Amino acid sequence: MGLKVAVVGATGAVGTELLRILEERSFPVDELLPFGSARSAGRSVRFRGDEVPISELRPDALAEVDLSISAAGASVARSFVREAAENGTVCIDKSSAFRMEPDVPLVIPEVNPEALAGAPRIIAVPNCTTIVALMALAPLHRAAGLRSVVLSSYQAVSGAGRGGVSELAEQTEKLASHFEELGHPDVETLPAGAVFGKTIAFNVLPSIDRIDEDGSTGEEVKTVQESRKILALEDLGVAATCVRVPVAVGHSVSLHARFSKPITSGEARELLSEAAGVELRDDPSNGVYPSPLDAAGRDDVLVGRIRGVPGHDDTLQLFACGDNLRKGAALNGIQIAEQLFRSA
Amino acid sequence: MGLKVAVVGATGAVGTELLRILEERSFPVDELLPFGSARSAGRSVRFRGDEVPISELRPDALAEVDLSISAAGASVARSFVREAAENGTVCIDKSSAFRMEPDVPLVIPEVNPEALAGAPRIIAVPNCTTIVALMALAPLHRAAGLRSVVLSSYQAVSGAGRGGVSELAEQTEKLASHFEELGHPDVETLPAGAVFGKTIAFNVLPSIDRIDEDGSTGEEVKTVQESRKILALEDLGVAATCVRVPVAVGHSVSLHARFSKPITSGEARELLSEAAGVELRDDPSNGVYPSPLDAAGRDDVLVGRIRGVPGHDDTLQLFACGDNLRKGAALNGIQIAEQLFRSA
Repeated sequence: MGLKVAVVGATGAVGTELLRILEERSFPVDELLPFGSARSAGRSVRFRGDEVPISELRPDALAEVDLSISAAGASVARSFVREAAENGTVCIDKSSAFRMEPDVPLVIPEVNPEALAGAPRIIAVPNCTTIVALMALAPLHRAAGLRSVVLSSYQAVSGAGRGGVSELAEQTEKLASHFEELGHPDVETLPAGAVFGKTIAFNVLPSIDRIDEDGSTGEEVKTVQESRKILALEDLGVAATCVRVPVAVGHSVSLHARFSKPITSGEARELLSEAAGVELRDDPSNGVYPSPLDAAGRDDVLVGRIRGVPGHDDTLQLFACGDNLRKGAALNGIQIAEQLFRSA
Repeated sequence: MGLKVAVVGATGAVGTELLRILEERSFPVDELLPFGSARSAGRSVRFRGDEVPISELRPDALAEVDLSISAAGASVARSFVREAAENGTVCIDKSSAFRMEPDVPLVIPEVNPEALAGAPRIIAVPNCTTIVALMALAPLHRAAGLRSVVLSSYQAVSGAGRGGVSELAEQTEKLASHFEELGHPDVETLPAGAVFGKTIAFNVLPSIDRIDEDGSTGEEVKTVQESRKILALEDLGVAATCVRVPVAVGHSVSLHARFSKPITSGEARELLSEAAGVELRDDPSNGVYPSPLDAAGRDDVLVGRIRGVPGHDDTLQLFACGDNLRKGAALNGIQIAEQLFRSA
């Protein structure tokens, strides 16, 4: 017997990957219920060769549903998750709505699967940048004890959803025909869209999400708080700078990590080469290093550029890239479902 | 009386900016001698409304030249600079050939103008990333004493010259029509060019320059060594990760800087708002922060996203963007010339 599975936000960038991965991994879906906004209702999604009509999410829509995987935003999640969970649906939510709730486990299955004990009804999927960073850091943390991280990110526009992708595509087309002028741009006439506010094509924007009173962005705060919760390290020092780059899919992080014990780059390479969900790409003199285009469409997080820091035998630098829509969101959610329903 | 000025590498990305800035700043050029490779010889450059023919650089070409500003690579620089300097020409060189030579000052005029004392004949212009980072850090260093820096860069393709710019333009055109496939790219068919080796369009590449035995790239090593020389801090800890991004012009750096004394983000803002060559862009909740497109074509290095690190009153995070062809190369070279010939 398979499961009755709802996919909320089925037409978005992450929703599309959710459907694709449910198929790829032959997840035991008996009945698929795709939900979208009022705008999407009436359209359909393709799943296992069938066209499945999209419904609008209404209060009683999840009755009898075994599993809901939601790729919708925090306000949609807040509108239905608690009630659905009370009515017996296991709700895996990729929004930020429940991540820091004490009763909600925040889970990367390769990193903290123990948080899934006790048959939780609501499980949060961490922020995409946090997932990519911790997939690289957790195997090293288990060996040497992570003390602090300085993180700078290179985040793809699809992290802001389909709208982010179209904004990059449109601006690229507009600016590509004026390529020679990019060295002396007329700032007044540069294209700016609703998603990023400023030009993202041929630019980088060091500001993702709202700014809080100490000058950090929401994205940076998430990275700090979620890393602490997932690793169960209350005092972990995380200094993050989150930056949007003109990449369609694939988040990258430059990491400078300090540990409690000495650890060499060789040891790190060995640990990461054996880590589940990680692919070591670390032979830079032969052109082998991670890049987001290499990570896009793949399950593994790619890790490379592993180096020590002279004079600090407890510190490593590394670079990691992961598909923000897959391991950074949809795949991680489905892996959680696989853990929870494996014994079912 | 003006000067007889040679511009070596006059047709390249930096050379073009050199000519533009010599005009903009009314530098006292009496006679301009533009030099290029054999391929460029016979062509001409436009300077103050005239077409000036380009010559090939030959051994005796710089006789009688007061000032040579070279935007050529290290091997070209090695072929002529020492001899020209011995014959009386002041040689300002932007290549890496002489930067670490003990007898050659490595100068950012706003940072270490004292290094120009003693009428040096060869003066090296630092690497573009180093210049952008130190323009932001030096004013804070003077107040609080810099101890260590973790740096991640976001470097424009023009840092690799005109070839880098064309490679981005060509790949962008090729991939823009397959934009929807970037989430699941066929890695085998991605365009790769001679300059970057891999696809730079819609990608980021954490590898610039050759790899040395400890796994650092040449670009990263330059950042470390040059920062120490310019700031005269032999033991300065610099952990750098240098990354190419699909930006035409404008290098960015994410900086995590530790000082010898406590320093607040407010103090840093005040220091940077008064620093020559720096423009503070730090009101992120109103969308005011630096981006490379905002820095392109401008003289000032833009600095923003200034924040403390909770629990560490001696540490700041900041983000800086500068035009790699101008302040990162051509402008910095001409500012050196202005200092040296001011009293002439």
